[in-house]
Amino acid sequence: MPVFLNTDDTDFEAAFTRLLGAKREDSPDVDDIVAGIIADVRARGDAAVLELTAKFDRLTLTPETMRFSEAEIEQHVARVPEAERRALEQAAERIRAYHVRQMPEDARWTDPEGASLGWRWTPVSAAGLYVPGGLASYPSSVLMNAIPAKVAGVGRLAITVPTPDGVVNPLVLMAARVAGVDEIYRIGGAQAVAALAYGTETIAPVDKITGPGNAFVAAAKRRVFGKVGIDMIAGPSEILVIADGDNDPDWIALDLLSQAEHDESAQSILITTDPAFGQAAAAAVDKRLETLERRAIAGASWRDFGAVITVRDLNEAAALSDRIAPEHLELCVADPEALSARITHAGAIFLGQWTPEAIGDYVGGPNHVLPTARSARFSSGLSVLDFVKRTTLARMTPESLRAIGPAAETLARSESLEAHGLSVTARLDRLNR
Amino acid sequence: MPVFLNTDDTDFEAAFTRLLGAKREDSPDVDDIVAGIIADVRARGDAAVLELTAKFDRLTLTPETMRFSEAEIEQHVARVPEAERRALEQAAERIRAYHVRQMPEDARWTDPEGASLGWRWTPVSAAGLYVPGGLASYPSSVLMNAIPAKVAGVGRLAITVPTPDGVVNPLVLMAARVAGVDEIYRIGGAQAVAALAYGTETIAPVDKITGPGNAFVAAAKRRVFGKVGIDMIAGPSEILVIADGDNDPDWIALDLLSQAEHDESAQSILITTDPAFGQAAAAAVDKRLETLERRAIAGASWRDFGAVITVRDLNEAAALSDRIAPEHLELCVADPEALSARITHAGAIFLGQWTPEAIGDYVGGPNHVLPTARSARFSSGLSVLDFVKRTTLARMTPESLRAIGPAAETLARSESLEAHGLSVTARLDRLNR
Repeated sequence: MPVFLNTDDTDFEAAFTRLLGAKREDSPDVDDIVAGIIADVRARGDAAVLELTAKFDRLTLTPETMRFSEAEIEQHVARVPEAERRALEQAAERIRAYHVRQMPEDARWTDPEGASLGWRWTPVSAAGLYVPGGLASYPSSVLMNAIPAKVAGVGRLAITVPTPDGVVNPLVLMAARVAGVDEIYRIGGAQAVAALAYGTETIAPVDKITGPGNAFVAAAKRRVFGKVGIDMIAGPSEILVIADGDNDPDWIALDLLSQAEHDESAQSILITTDPAFGQAAAAAVDKRLETLERRAIAGASWRDFGAVITVRDLNEAAALSDRIAPEHLELCVADPEALSARITHAGAIFLGQWTPEAIGDYVGGPNHVLPTARSARFSSGLSVLDFVKRTTLARMTPESLRAIGPAAETLARSESLEAHGLSVTARLDRLNR
Repeated sequence: MPVFLNTDDTDFEAAFTRLLGAKREDSPDVDDIVAGIIADVRARGDAAVLELTAKFDRLTLTPETMRFSEAEIEQHVARVPEAERRALEQAAERIRAYHVRQMPEDARWTDPEGASLGWRWTPVSAAGLYVPGGLASYPSSVLMNAIPAKVAGVGRLAITVPTPDGVVNPLVLMAARVAGVDEIYRIGGAQAVAALAYGTETIAPVDKITGPGNAFVAAAKRRVFGKVGIDMIAGPSEILVIADGDNDPDWIALDLLSQAEHDESAQSILITTDPAFGQAAAAAVDKRLETLERRAIAGASWRDFGAVITVRDLNEAAALSDRIAPEHLELCVADPEALSARITHAGAIFLGQWTPEAIGDYVGGPNHVLPTARSARFSSGLSVLDFVKRTTLARMTPESLRAIGPAAETLARSESLEAHGLSVTARLDRLNR
C-alpha cells in the first residue's frame, strides 16, 4: 500500500523527509568489470567488441556486419505497420518543431571602451546515442535523443543498439531513420560506450555520448566522461500529480500508473487538497492494477514508493513540490498556470487535466529525457544545448587595451602572475612610446 | 626544449599525435581518502569539519568562527590597497556586463494544433563556490564564478576558502564582497565540498558547487555529483597562439609564458606560418625565462609540453587548432576574424595582437573558467547557464489532445506501456462520448 500523509499530521515532516530520502535504486557495483571492458576495447578495438557481443548478446558478428547496412535497415523498416510509421513521423515533426526554437543565438557587440566582445555557438562534430535492447528499447527515446542532436547541427550521429540473439526492433530503426541518424551499430553494453568514446577500426570515435542504459552502460558513461561529453545519468522515473477534487479519479490513477509501470523503482506521488479525492484516486489505482498488463511492476512501484498527500491549500502543494523537485509534474487544478508560476524546481510541467504526462513522452514536443532524483534543483532536460558549445570572443583595440589593461596588470601582480602582467605591459609600453 | 614541428616533415603526423596525447597530469588517486572524509562529514557534520580543518590547515575553529563575520570581512577588506580595489571593481563591472547578456529567455507559444508549449528558466536556489587557499587563491576566479551565479539570480551563494595557519587573502574577501557573495567559510579540501553538498549544523546545503581545487577537491566534486550539480573538473591550463611573421616575438613569448607560469603541467603551443618567427619567439621565451619570477614552473612547462609548429598556411593552422581544441586561442594574424570563422573548437578566442590572453583572465568580460584537455570539442566555459535550469511546459486543449493523442496511444502500445496509452484513451473517450 502506498503511504497516505496529511500535512496536518503531527509527524508529517518526519514522514515526508523519509519519503524524499527513500533509496529507490540499488545499482550493482559493476565498475571493475566495466573498467576491464573499456581497457579491452581500447587495446583490441573491433576484436574485443566482437568477442564481448558474442558473449553477452549471443550474436556472432564481423567488422562488416557490426553496422546495419542500408539494405537491412530498409528491410526492417518495411515491416513497420503504417499506423506506427505515421505516429513516429508525427512525433518527430512535433519534437523537431519544439527543439528548433531552442537553438541559441550568437552575439557580438562593441562595449563603451571599444572592445569587441561576444560568443558564438558551434555544434559538436560527432555524437553517439546509446539505445538499450530488449524491453527498454524505446523508439520514442531514439527520437528524443537524436532530433536535438540533428537540430543542433551534429554532422555525424551514430547509434548503438544491442540485438540480443539477433532480435531487431524495427521501430528503433524506423525512428533512427526518421530522425536522420547516420550510422547504426548492433552492439551494446559497456563495450558499445567504449567503442563510441575511443573508436575502433570500424567505428570512428565521437565527442559526446547520450542515452539511457543499464548499470553497465551508466558506469561506462561515467568512466569515459572527460574523454567525451555525456548527458545525465538518469535514475528511475518519477511523477508528481497535484490535483484538486474536481478531477476524474481514474484519469489521475492512470497518470500515476504510467510512471509506475516503467520500473519497480519508479515513484508516483499524488498531492491533493481533497482527502476524499485522494482516497478515490488510490481506489482507482487498485482497480486498474487488477487488469494492467504490467501490474506486477506497477503494483510493486505503487506499493513501495507511491504516496498520497493531503494538503490544506495549493500554496502548501507548491512548497512540497519544490522540495520533491519532480521529473514530471502534472497540475490538474482549476488554474494550472497560476500554480505553475509558484513552482521553481521541476523537469517538465504538464498543465491542466487534458495534458496527461504520456503526451510528453511521445508527441507533445518537449523532450522526455528529464532530470530525476531531485536533480531538477540544478539541471535541465535534454535539449539542443547539449549538442552545441560556446566559444567566447574578445578583441581589443589599442584604445580599449589602454583603458582596461592597467587593471589587468594590477590584478596579475596581486596574484603573483608576472608574465600575465608583462604580456599587457609590453603592449601598453608600445602605445606609450 | 620545446618540440619544433613542421607540417612538411614526413613524421609530422606521428609527432603531432604524440603532442596531442601527451599525458600532462598524473593526479594522485585520493578517492578512498576523499570517500572517508565525505562519510565523516555526513555522519558528524561540524565536528568532522572542525577536526579536519585543525589537521590539514593547522587552524582551530569553532562552529561560531567557521564563518567570517561581517566585521572580520570589513577589517580584511580595509587592508586592500586602493589600486587593487579599483581594479577588482572595474573587472567585476566588465564581467557582469558581459554575463548579463547570457541570461536565456523564456518562451511560450501555441502550435497549429492548439497546444500551448514552451519553457521557462529559473535560478538554482543555492550555490557553493570553492576557492583554493595559498598560492592558487585567485581573487579573479572568485569574480568569474560568483558573478555568473549572481547574474543568474542564485539566492544564496556561499564560498569556502581554506586559510592554512590562519593566513587570509584580503583580496579574496574583497572579490567576494564585490561579487555579492552571501557567506564565506574558512574551510577547504574535501571536507568543504562535503559540507556544501550535504550540509552541517552551521552550513546549509547548496544545490550546485563550482570552482577549482586540488586532487582532493576534484575527487570530492566527482563524488558529490548527482546529489548536487558541479561544474567541469578542470585540467592544467593551455594556450595555442596562431601568429604570422608580422608580430613582436617578445609579445608572443609573454603570451606563451602566461600559461606556462601557471603550472608545470600547463601547455603553450605556437603555430606560425613563418619558421623564422617561430625561432625568434622561442628565443624570446628563453630570454624572458632568465628573469621571470616563476621561471622554474614556466621553464618546466615550456620544456616538457611547449611546441612550435610551422605550417604552410592559415588553413592548415585552423585544421590543427581544431584537433587541439584549445582552452585559449590567440589569433595574432592580419585578419583574425576571417581565421576565427574557420575554427570550430575552442574555449575562448582572442582576436588580434592587441588582445593578450591575460586580458581575458581578468578584465575582458568573458569567463576565464574554460574547457581544458580538448573538451572544447563538447563543452563550454562557465556561464550564467550553469546556474539556471529549464522547466519545459505543455498544455493540451481537448482539441489538441484529439489531434495528437492517437499517435501517443499508438506509440505507447508499440512500447508495451499500456497505462501510458490508457491515460490518453480515457480522456479521448470522454471527448468522443
